[in-house]
This record gives sequence, structure tokens and C-alpha cells, in this order.
Amino acid sequence: MNYEHIFDEAIDRLHSEGRYRVFIDILRNKGAFPNARCFAGHNGPKPITVWCSNDYLSMGQHPKVVAAMEDALHDVGAGSGGTRNIGGNTHYHIQLEQELAGLHGKEAALIFTSGYVSNDATLSTLAKLLPGCVIFSDELNHASMIAGIRNSGCPKRVYRHNDLAHLEELLAAEDADTPKLIAFESVYSMDGDVAPVHAICDLAEKYNALTYIDEVHAVGMYGQHGGGISERDDAAHRIDLIEGTMGKAFGVMGGYVASSRKVIDCIRSYAPGFIFTTSLSPVLVAGVLASVRHLKESSVEREAQQANAASLKRHFREAGLPVMDSTTHIVPLMVGDPVRAKTISDILLAEYGVYVQPINFPTVPRGTERLRFTPGPTHTEGMMVELTDSLVEIWDRLDLELQKAA
Amino acid sequence: MNYEHIFDEAIDRLHSEGRYRVFIDILRNKGAFPNARCFAGHNGPKPITVWCSNDYLSMGQHPKVVAAMEDALHDVGAGSGGTRNIGGNTHYHIQLEQELAGLHGKEAALIFTSGYVSNDATLSTLAKLLPGCVIFSDELNHASMIAGIRNSGCPKRVYRHNDLAHLEELLAAEDADTPKLIAFESVYSMDGDVAPVHAICDLAEKYNALTYIDEVHAVGMYGQHGGGISERDDAAHRIDLIEGTMGKAFGVMGGYVASSRKVIDCIRSYAPGFIFTTSLSPVLVAGVLASVRHLKESSVEREAQQANAASLKRHFREAGLPVMDSTTHIVPLMVGDPVRAKTISDILLAEYGVYVQPINFPTVPRGTERLRFTPGPTHTEGMMVELTDSLVEIWDRLDLELQKAA
Ligand SMILES: Cc1ncc(COP(=O)(O)O)c(C=O)c1O
Ligand SMILES: Cc1ncc(COP(=O)(O)O)c(C=O)c1O
Repeated sequence: MNYEHIFDEAIDRLHSEGRYRVFIDILRNKGAFPNARCFAGHNGPKPITVWCSNDYLSMGQHPKVVAAMEDALHDVGAGSGGTRNIGGNTHYHIQLEQELAGLHGKEAALIFTSGYVSNDATLSTLAKLLPGCVIFSDELNHASMIAGIRNSGCPKRVYRHNDLAHLEELLAAEDADTPKLIAFESVYSMDGDVAPVHAICDLAEKYNALTYIDEVHAVGMYGQHGGGISERDDAAHRIDLIEGTMGKAFGVMGGYVASSRKVIDCIRSYAPGFIFTTSLSPVLVAGVLASVRHLKESSVEREAQQANAASLKRHFREAGLPVMDSTTHIVPLMVGDPVRAKTISDILLAEYGVYVQPINFPTVPRGTERLRFTPGPTHTEGMMVELTDSLVEIWDRLDLELQKAA
Repeated sequence: MNYEHIFDEAIDRLHSEGRYRVFIDILRNKGAFPNARCFAGHNGPKPITVWCSNDYLSMGQHPKVVAAMEDALHDVGAGSGGTRNIGGNTHYHIQLEQELAGLHGKEAALIFTSGYVSNDATLSTLAKLLPGCVIFSDELNHASMIAGIRNSGCPKRVYRHNDLAHLEELLAAEDADTPKLIAFESVYSMDGDVAPVHAICDLAEKYNALTYIDEVHAVGMYGQHGGGISERDDAAHRIDLIEGTMGKAFGVMGGYVASSRKVIDCIRSYAPGFIFTTSLSPVLVAGVLASVRHLKESSVEREAQQANAASLKRHFREAGLPVMDSTTHIVPLMVGDPVRAKTISDILLAEYGVYVQPINFPTVPRGTERLRFTPGPTHTEGMMVELTDSLVEIWDRLDLELQKAA
């Protein structure tokens, strides 16, 4: 048994497919997002513009968020010091859970250390509590949902992306008495398209299935109070469990699930991924609380972000760049090859001071490698023009085709 | 299919076993640990003394930690804004990983959002990379290791707690060519006993098995630089993977694994629980960095904590309280019944302003329910005397037996 050899092979596979990943070493400049410093070379930090942050609304630098975190740090210290059950439950956690429940019009909510853990822990626990449960999962569901579903040990039926006919076919094939759970996302973050939420709820009602929606890329971003697509489409009351993150539009970190008091009580009581871990630092919880409260009242950030996303899509389209058909705030540019995507990204960083990460398998299917831009409310029109020009130059240099504008 | 009914039953089971858990709502007072405020009643916060924090060394209020977090908050903002691969890798993360690798004398380290996730993600990924791997697991291993092992899909052999003969028997029963991994803890946190690290490494060498140690309750606490039991016993070089948390002795939150460059590169590249999640907030990372660096140089906190733990054990023993046989900083008091453990804890909180959580199944085996005290360097001799007197009063009131001091 030669362990070294096996590990070598595992790494070689990645290199040979051109998808070995190298971390980009950056520090964002608080108060000046999307400006950042990059430590790539050996001559100290170099200024860059970040185009791929999921801190979509720049709430990570919002004065209210920063002030709330500073206050908590000085009031109660750095960490919680324990699990929620043993010494690590704070008044901040309870307040944030109430706030998040309210945001989604649910009775209760539960905080996890991340959105990943909230999906993994909730789906695996929920399905285990329902004997014989069958889970219906959109084929493009996020890795964390896939993990939760697999870890539940329940049978899984994968339906084609947003394909209602296929979903219905699979639902109809199961026994009426079988517990069923439909798990899907609202905004699919790599394509920027949106699930037909009401139509999925119609099917869930028809076949008596529970519904579970991942609103990770939508909370804070859609709906009058930032309640996500389920708020925007007035569908939250039809969905059993709404899952979200505190690490993207809310700008901090952590994850949560909102549902009925009973369901939350079950997850709280049975999920190992919730029970056996140090709770989220109260410093973070305080920051999220400020962020959620702010975005409940303020739509300025959401509107500026949407305007910038529309503008960037327009610039790309007019320049003939292969911008994908996104209906949301996400602006993906199709490249279709992992090595080429990385080359473009490398040139952008080294020569233009633009940071956008190439998105490769397993994050997206092979052959659909892309660059994924997330303009925030603080990107300027000038930055967008400059970015578009840089991309056109690179497209030319690499002999890539530009589409004729329609 | 009546979903409500199933959820009701799940909660009823907990009530009927006396192990339905209620969160205690507290805020610790930074600068004055173990003092805290409890929000249990309706008359506002009430002062309490915390006796069950896993912020063992009170690093969560250390001025260096607080200052580092404040600086990072103002320099780069609240969250990282992305996964490590996409926009969420910062200079702090890289520095902390170097620091942790150094702490354990390893080539590399990798940060996760929690110790739970580091165990789950690493064990499941590692074992999947080794075709046919068999995992040998101590029967008292933590839920997060159990999750990682189960999620790896590999066959598992559970050996009796710290039982070398049993471990060897199981190792010997496997084919010599089968990849093998032995997973164990250094300090078992509910009993306070320690694994025979060198003897386990001897067996690993004899049977060509990889070794994985969970030092969650030992990092920062043991060894001249806080490298854990593996540093104290001069065994780190014999262990393939050392896992730790940033949420206990280091006082903040997060988890990590240290190992060879190659193994870390594999986990970094293949573990979904690492790849598909927003990275740890740079604010936390900066705090941990300060904490690890401080505890590498300073033994004052460790020594004060050990002295207090020894003193509390002595007080308990002299009073005839059933203190368990711990060889570490953990002071468990055996109660043996979930309802009684909760009653004692409730009286302590309501009448004596003492917060110590009852530890019930599934955290410990049924019939071994206990109270678990974790004296820190900031608990005073007076607090210990008072606590002991309170417990003796409660023992009397509940007609529990006190042991005659030997
Ligand atoms: C759809 C989706 N769900 C869940 C997650 C995980 O959330 P978090 O980053 O808070 O772990 C992500 C991305 O990180 C995601 O894209
Ligand atoms: C032995 C052990 N390993 C891992 C963990 C998980 O660490 P964290 O709290 O950082 O998730 C814990 C407790 O929380 C533990 O007791």
C-alpha cells in the first residue's frame, strides 16, 4: 500500500484536465469595494478590481454592519465558547433567528455555521425523520444540497433542470403514501436563471410533497424586504423550508433555515451538524443582524446592483461577448473550455488588474466553463466600460469569436 | 402522509426521555469572563458565572485577539465574500494556514468553517481517495468524525475506547494491502481522558495504516507551544493528519487540518465541504492568528487553567462529590440520569447564578449523564469554594449520596 502514490495520482488527474486550482491571495479594501489588493507577485500588494465577489451588495463594508460587529466584539468577545446547547447560545443568536423567521414569514428559524452546513444538516436530518422519504432534486442543485440528500440515505429522483413535466412524471411514479420532498434553488448561481416557484408548489400540493428552497443567491437581493424570490413571487407561505446564507448578499458568513416551529424544533434537536459544533461567533451574528435589518428597510443597494447588472450585460452584448442568458444579477460569460477560461482570467489579473475567477468543473458541467461576473452597487460605469474593452482585446488576442450584435 | 404528525412524534420522543433541550440565553461579559448575563426570566439580564465554556483559556477576550479582529474588520470588512477558490481567499487565510502548519510541525494546513466540517470533509474525502480503505474508529469518537466516516462510504471497524489490543485485533484481521486509516481523539472531552498516542502510532506503523488525530480539546492547551497532546508527547511527526478547532482554546471559531503538502492539496482539491462554501470571515481568521501566535509563546494561560482544574477536582473530591477520573483540564461530575442532571443544572442557574449545562445522550451514552465543568484561568478560588458548597447543598436537597473522602 503506497499512500503517497495514490495522492500523487489524485493531484495529477487535476493537472491533466487543466482544472488544478490555485488560490488568488487578496485583501479587499473596506470602504472602497470593489477595490482590493492582490499578493500574486513578489513585489508586495498590487491594486485590483474584484468582479467575482458574492458579497453582492457590498454589505461587508456597510457602516452599520461594521459598527454592530465592533460593538459585539467589545461587549461579549470573539467567539461563543460553545455549542448552542452547551454555553454557546447568545442573545444575538436568538434575535437573529427571530429576525430571519420574520423575513420569510415563518414561525421559526435556525442558524448554522454556513449555508453549506444548513443544507447538508437540514436535508439529511429531515429526510431521516420521514421514514421511506423520496427526495426530488433539480439536476443543477448545489453540492451542499447533494451532500445533504446523499447523507440522508434516502432514494433520490433527479429531475431535469426546472423541468416541471419531468418533475411531475417522477412524483406521479411514487406511491401516494410515500413521504416526498422537493429540493430546489430559487436563483441558480452559475447560470443566473430562476426556478418556477409557484408551479413547483402546485405540483407539491397535488402530490402532497414537502418543499425545500435554497435561496442562497436571492436572500437580501429580491423581494421588497430582501426575502428572496419567494418573497418577490409571493410564494413563501407555500414553501415548507426556506434556506439561506449570511455570507453573500448579507456580507458576513453563516447559514440558516426558516420553517414552522415544529420542523425547526426537530432539526434543532436531531441534526448532528447543528448540535455538535461551536455556534457562530456572536460578532458575526451581530453583523448579520444589522445587515438583515438594513436590507429589510432599504432597497437602494438592490436597485443599484440590478441597474449595474443590466448595464454590464448590455455592454457585453453590444461588444459581441458571449454573455449567457441570465435573468438575474449574475453575468456569466461562456468560454466552454477550462484551460481557456483560466488563461483569460490570468491575463485579466496580470495585465488589467481585473479579478474574475474561471468557473470549472465540478462547479459547472464540463464543456460549460465560464467567467462569472457579479457587478455590485459600487462598480462604476467607467469600470464596466474598461472591463468590456479589456475583454474584447483578450478575445482578439486569443482569436476567439465575437458575436455580431443583433 | 401526515407530516405534522411525524414531526410531533419526533419531539415527543425527546420529552418522554427527559432529553428535550432548551437553549440558555446568555451574553458573556468581555473583559470579565467567566461573568456573564443570563436572559432566562422576564426581568432583564441577570448576572451569572459560566462554568461550561469551551473557551478554555478565555482567549475570546484576550486584548490581542480583540485588537486583531478589530483591525481586520476595518481593513477588509465583515466577510470574505466568496469561497476560497472564488474571491474568498485572503492573505489572512494563507498566513493562518502557515502558522498552524508550523504549530504542528507539518508542511501544510487547511482551514474549514468549523472543527465539525474539518472532520467531516477530511475523513470523507481522504477515505474516498483511497480505494477500498477501511477506517478504524475509537468507539467514543466525536459525532463529526462519525459523520465523516459514514459519509466516506468506507467500511468502519469500531474499537473499544483506547483499547490497543482490540485495535490490533481489528487491524490484523484486514488484508495487508488494504488501505487503512486509524481515527481517534487525543483528549476525550466528556471524560477527560487521553489516548495512548505513541502506542497507536506503533500499531499504525506495524500495519501500515494512516493516522488521524482529533486534537480539538487539546490544541492551545497542551505542549510547549499549544500544539496539543501530540506536541506534549513528542508524537506529531508520527501522525499523518492532525485536526483542530479554532473555537475552543483559541477562543474564536473555525477548524483545520495539518498534514503533508500532498495530502492537504488533495483535500483542498476534492472535498466538497471545503470547496463549496464561503470561506471563514477574515475577521475571525485574524483573531485566530493572534490567538495561536500568543499561545505559541505564552504558557501562563495554560498553567493557570491546569492549576484551577486541579484545584476544582480537589474541592469536589474533598466534598465527596462524584467527580470522574479525568487526567486533563475537564472536570466531569457523574449524575447518571438525564432528568436529575437537568434538575441540578436548573437549580444552579436559578438559585445560585451558576451556569453549567447537563450533558445528556447523544453527547454521552445513556446512563452516564453528567455535569461537565471547565474551569478557566479566570475562575477564582472563591468561585470554586462557592460552587462546591452549592453543589453539596443541592446533593443534600435531592437526597443524593456523597462519597466519603478516602
Ligand atoms: C446554491 C448554494 N447553496 C449553498 C451554498 C453554500 O452557502 P455558504 O457559502 O454560506 O456555505 C452556496 C455557495 O456557497 C450556493 O451557491
Ligand atoms: C472532539 C471534537 N471534535 C470536533 C468538534 C467540532 O469542533 P467545532 O466546534 O469547531 O465544530 C468538537 C466539538 O465541538 C469536539 O468535541
